Amino acid sequence: MRYKIGVDLGGTTVKMGLFTSECELIEDWEIVTDKSDNGANILNDIASSIDEKLEANNITKNLVDGLGIGVPGPVVNGVVYGCTNIGWGDVNLVDELSELIGLQVYADNDANVAALGEYFAGSGKDYSSILMVTLGTGVGGGIIIDGNIIQGFNGYAGELGHMLVNFNETDMCTCGKCGCLEQYSSATGVKRLALKHLSESNNESSLKEFGETINAKIVFEEAKKGDNVALKTVDECLTMLGRGIANVCHVINPEAVILGGGMSNAGDYMMRKLRSEFDAGMIFIKKDTKLVLASLGSRAGIYGACHLVG
Amino acid sequence: MRYKIGVDLGGTTVKMGLFTSECELIEDWEIVTDKSDNGANILNDIASSIDEKLEANNITKNLVDGLGIGVPGPVVNGVVYGCTNIGWGDVNLVDELSELIGLQVYADNDANVAALGEYFAGSGKDYSSILMVTLGTGVGGGIIIDGNIIQGFNGYAGELGHMLVNFNETDMCTCGKCGCLEQYSSATGVKRLALKHLSESNNESSLKEFGETINAKIVFEEAKKGDNVALKTVDECLTMLGRGIANVCHVINPEAVILGGGMSNAGDYMMRKLRSEFDAGMIFIKKDTKLVLASLGSRAGIYGACHLVG
Repeated sequence: MRYKIGVDLGGTTVKMGLFTSECELIEDWEIVTDKSDNGANILNDIASSIDEKLEANNITKNLVDGLGIGVPGPVVNGVVYGCTNIGWGDVNLVDELSELIGLQVYADNDANVAALGEYFAGSGKDYSSILMVTLGTGVGGGIIIDGNIIQGFNGYAGELGHMLVNFNETDMCTCGKCGCLEQYSSATGVKRLALKHLSESNNESSLKEFGETINAKIVFEEAKKGDNVALKTVDECLTMLGRGIANVCHVINPEAVILGGGMSNAGDYMMRKLRSEFDAGMIFIKKDTKLVLASLGSRAGIYGACHLVG
Repeated sequence: MRYKIGVDLGGTTVKMGLFTSECELIEDWEIVTDKSDNGANILNDIASSIDEKLEANNITKNLVDGLGIGVPGPVVNGVVYGCTNIGWGDVNLVDELSELIGLQVYADNDANVAALGEYFAGSGKDYSSILMVTLGTGVGGGIIIDGNIIQGFNGYAGELGHMLVNFNETDMCTCGKCGCLEQYSSATGVKRLALKHLSESNNESSLKEFGETINAKIVFEEAKKGDNVALKTVDECLTMLGRGIANVCHVINPEAVILGGGMSNAGDYMMRKLRSEFDAGMIFIKKDTKLVLASLGSRAGIYGACHLVG
């Protein structure tokens, strides 16, 4: 039997998976991401953890086809160009990690890798091309066409969180522009909108009692119950998301759009509204573009990383 | 010596080129597009014209590697799914044309094929990936990554003319939506904007004397001379174009954006303004994305079609 390894390097934990060479998950585990010293220990920690796991399973390295890894920053030709949330500057990831671990290493951006996971092992597996949109603290994305990641010249393809979707916005995004998709359709964006609508509204709202502890989950739940301020917030979030996704679909025309990340837990409630906004923004091909929920959850990254291995 | 043939099927003329097998142009010519009878004669006309040309050059078909063709409609796997402006419904173009002409045929959408031409033989030849934007009667586009056309699941990739860029628009686009890029940044869109601004303005304007004969070329020329209404029109055209292109670059992050089509004749004057709008809409990578003018003019299509031939 032969094996592959998938690694998903995040700001809080490093998720890892031991797979068969056909990318069937055997076992997954995680370690804490050590961000001290600008993340200088992270690659050593990963290498040690994998060495232990292989030893525990009596697997020698000559039986391992390679290791794939997704990281939270742009990657071109195996080199990472900065991961601010783990303290990295430019890192020649493929060379450094393969030297440490003695395996062939393949690397890409985490959002792209998650998209690859859903494409091969999740909701995308029936489609030839997908756009994956991850609705978390921010809005991330990845594009897979015929099994290949669209990486972009600088490793920034799929950055749809910073598409401009509202040219009337006066509040500033973290990137310095005004009107980015992320300002409406991320968890942070939903909280921002809800607090703004609450402060502007004289109506009763069940959101008031939550105050600053309000979050996207609460807003979606209260919207389902019919609260007006919550409904207005969800409406704005999904209008902008529908516009943004429709614009992307005019450019790459994927067979399916896969929605993942924490906010996608709102499920069918979210998808119905999103579908109608998307259709309003599309011409011709709108009925042919599938909109589906992701199915791998937080394991999308390790599956995708495994599929990076050639 | 071996040969390839490139064909660019347009609504008015069919442009054709005889190339070496290394895609060096030997001779180009054109015939009128016969739109009678829902375009039923077009393929026969193309086949006859090429037969004549090969005969006149004493080239036998066994010396021709194949024929590439760009058509004004979506193409998937050699099948055209409707070309309204030449009267075609669904046409199995590759099968029908290769049967008529006795050559291997390769087909794609005209905007994609023009992009492929600029990529291999024009302004794109130094770049690994490009977005080509064609500013004509409408706004078309094509995406080439590592030498491959991004075709889209329905053949609609690169349709950036119908991205929404203005959510406050009340005038309707030909597609039925309001606020499409094409409503501002096509020749038709510039005329629409100029007439609108003229009717709303009490100021003197050199555009007034042109009345309904106004066109994009006149508007750009009068803007260069400092006319206020023309300047306002050009400003709106390029603001929307810059926004639209920036949004696309967040999604596919190409190395270069190539501007072609009649309106691109405004040249440096247009590019300076466009660059500043583009930069305002981009984060991080804006300085790395080149914006350049197309260089093949109306021959981009035949060059690209030649490069379709495998």
